[in-house]
Amino acid sequence: MPPSEESAAWATLTRAPALDIPALSKALEILGSARGITEASDASRERAGLPAAAREFLSTAAAASNCAERAWLENPRHHVVPFTDPRYPALLGATERHPVALYVAGSLDALNEPQLAIVGSRNPTPQGRDTAHELSEYLAARGLAITSGLAVGVDSAAHRGALAAQGITLAVLGSGVDVIYPRSNRSLSVEIRQQGALVSGFPLGTPPRRENFPQRNCIIAALSLGTLVVEAARSSGSLITARQAASYGREVFAIPGSIHSPLSRGCHELIRQGAKLTETAHDILSELNFSAFFTGRSDAATGPDMTFPRELGMDKDHKILLDALGFDPADLDVLVVRTGFKPEAVSSMMLILELEGHVQAAPGGRYSRVVRSRR
Amino acid sequence: MPPSEESAAWATLTRAPALDIPALSKALEILGSARGITEASDASRERAGLPAAAREFLSTAAAASNCAERAWLENPRHHVVPFTDPRYPALLGATERHPVALYVAGSLDALNEPQLAIVGSRNPTPQGRDTAHELSEYLAARGLAITSGLAVGVDSAAHRGALAAQGITLAVLGSGVDVIYPRSNRSLSVEIRQQGALVSGFPLGTPPRRENFPQRNCIIAALSLGTLVVEAARSSGSLITARQAASYGREVFAIPGSIHSPLSRGCHELIRQGAKLTETAHDILSELNFSAFFTGRSDAATGPDMTFPRELGMDKDHKILLDALGFDPADLDVLVVRTGFKPEAVSSMMLILELEGHVQAAPGGRYSRVVRSRR
Repeated sequence: MPPSEESAAWATLTRAPALDIPALSKALEILGSARGITEASDASRERAGLPAAAREFLSTAAAASNCAERAWLENPRHHVVPFTDPRYPALLGATERHPVALYVAGSLDALNEPQLAIVGSRNPTPQGRDTAHELSEYLAARGLAITSGLAVGVDSAAHRGALAAQGITLAVLGSGVDVIYPRSNRSLSVEIRQQGALVSGFPLGTPPRRENFPQRNCIIAALSLGTLVVEAARSSGSLITARQAASYGREVFAIPGSIHSPLSRGCHELIRQGAKLTETAHDILSELNFSAFFTGRSDAATGPDMTFPRELGMDKDHKILLDALGFDPADLDVLVVRTGFKPEAVSSMMLILELEGHVQAAPGGRYSRVVRSRR
Repeated sequence: MPPSEESAAWATLTRAPALDIPALSKALEILGSARGITEASDASRERAGLPAAAREFLSTAAAASNCAERAWLENPRHHVVPFTDPRYPALLGATERHPVALYVAGSLDALNEPQLAIVGSRNPTPQGRDTAHELSEYLAARGLAITSGLAVGVDSAAHRGALAAQGITLAVLGSGVDVIYPRSNRSLSVEIRQQGALVSGFPLGTPPRRENFPQRNCIIAALSLGTLVVEAARSSGSLITARQAASYGREVFAIPGSIHSPLSRGCHELIRQGAKLTETAHDILSELNFSAFFTGRSDAATGPDMTFPRELGMDKDHKILLDALGFDPADLDVLVVRTGFKPEAVSSMMLILELEGHVQAAPGGRYSRVVRSRR
C-alpha cells in the first residue's frame, strides 16, 4: 500500500525546525493540509505565518527528498499520527507542548488504550524487577495497557510482564521509532511492535540523544492515566516522569522498600510528596477507578482479595503462610508463631509450597520465598 | 526514708474502683488531700461526692492495709505521682482519661524528658530490630528519651538502643510497676530502672492482663512528642498506639519496607493515613523541631547529613559506596556502575570497608552489608 501523501507531508513537517503547534495550526487554517504546506511556495508559507527557520528547511532538497519516510510508511503497521488526527491520543493532546505528530510502529489502536506507565531504575534489585514484571502482567491481563521507555531494568520488566499476559504494551522512545536503543532490547522491541506499539515524537533516524529523554518521559507520563515508579534512586529520570504525571493531574504510584536500599529513596521521596504508596495491583486499580475502562478483556475482578499472579488460585492457608514468610528466611517455629497454625500443619504446607516452587529450603532449617524466574 | 503519708494515700486511691479524675478533683477540693480522702469518714466521703463503689472499697480493711505500697515506697527511687503533682507529665495530663497517678520505679526526672515512643512488632525481622536499635541509640544520644512498652522485639531493641547510648529510656507497663512482663525482660528492666524509669498507671501487683495493654499504649503515646512504628503487621497493637498519638495531635512516624513483608503492611497503612515516612533519624528530629528541646547533651548536630551511628565519621566516598551497596549483595562491577568510581578505587575501598566490618564478602565475588550485631 503506498503511503498517503498527507502522512508523508506530516513526516516532512516533523523534521522542520521551529514548527510548534500554534504556528502549524495557523498555517493549516490557511493552507488546508500538511501537503498544502509542504507544496506551497515560500511566499505562501510566509503569508501563512511559518517561522523563517521552518521555511528555510522546507525549501531545501532535504525536505523534498523524504524517501526514507515514504519507504517506512509503506509498511501498513507504520503510522504518522499528527496532532490534528482524531486518533492522536486525547490525554497527550491535553498537555502543553505535545509533539506535532507521533510516529507509531505497531498497533495504532494501542495509542488510545487506557494506559499505566511503569518506570524505574535501569539497575533495579531482583525484587524490583519482579515487582515490575508481576504488576505489569497482572494489570495488562485486566485490560490496562502498560507504557514504558524500553530502557533496561524496570522498563524492560514492565514491557515483558505485559507481553507475558498477552496484554498491550507501548514503548516510547527517545530516538526515532526506527532506532532501537539500547540495542540489547531489539528482540523485545520486535515483540512490543507485534503486541502493542513503539512510539516516538522524534523524526525517523533520530539518534538517542541524552537531551531527547526528558521529552520521551513527558510523553510517557502524558499518555498514561497514572505513573507507577517501581525503584528509583534520588534525582533519577523516573522521578521526572512521575513529577510530569503529577503536573498533568495524573495519579502517581510508588512502591516502598527498605530504608537501606538506595533504590527506594526516590520512591520514598515521591510518597512524601503525595504519591500513592502502592503494595498491590489493587491499590492502582482502585485509585484509577479502572472498572470504567474495562473492555471486557479476561478476568475483570477488582475486589480487595486481588494479589500477585503467582498467588492467584492458591489455597487460603497456603497464602497466609506465604505472607507470614515474607521476604526474609524464617524457620518453622517462627511461622507457627506468626500464623497461629499447628506445627505439623505448617510443616506439611511448607512441603507443598516447596514442591510447588513457592519457597525453598535454606540452611539451618529455614525457608525463603522463591524469586520468580525471568521470562 | 519513710514514705510520705500522702504518697501512701494516693497508692490507696489508685486501687479504688470508679474513681476518675473529675470525681477525685471534686473530693480533693472538699477534703484537701489524698490523705484527707482516705482518712475521712464514709459520710464525709459521700458528701465530697465520691462514688459508692469507691467509698465501699475505702471502708474495707484492704484499703486500710496498704503495707505492700508502704514497703515499696520506702525505696527512694519508687514514686507515686498523682495527677495533681507538678511532676506529673504535662503531655500526659493534656490527654483525656489519663491515669489518676503514675507509679514510677527509677528516675522521676525521666518522666518529663522530651520523649519519642518507638514501638513495633514483638516478632520483627532482623532488619527491623536493627532499625529500632540504631534509631533509638542515635536519638537517645542526642537527648531524646525513648519510651516503649518493654515487650520483646522492637520494644526491647528500642530500650536497648537508648541504654547503649547512655541515654534515657522509659518502659510503660501493662501491669503493676513491680510485675515485670515478659519475664525474659527482667534484666533489661533492671537496666531501664537504673538509667530511666519503669512507669505504670496500674496499682502494684496488677497482673499483665490482656485488657490492660490498650491503656498502656495510650500512656506511651501520650507521654511522647511523637510515636515511631518500626515494623507492624496490620491490626497490631502498635497501630493502636500510633492512632492514639495521632488523636492527641502528636507526630506519627513509620518505617517503610518491602511490599512482600507482612511486617511492613501496618507501617504502610499508617503512611497512607498521613504518618511521616521515615528513613533516617533526621526525618524525626526535623519534624519534631527537636532543637527546641536540646538539653546540651553530647553532639547537637541536626543537619541534613546526619545518618545512622555506624556511618558517622566515615569517609565520604566510603559512605557513597556503602549507600550504593544497599541491602542486597552486589559485585564490584555493579558498584562501579552505581558510584561512577574507578574499579580499582572501588576494590580498595571495599577492602577497607570489609576490614572495618561494614561489609562482608559473599560467594561469587559479591559483597553484602554487615547487619550490626545485637548488644
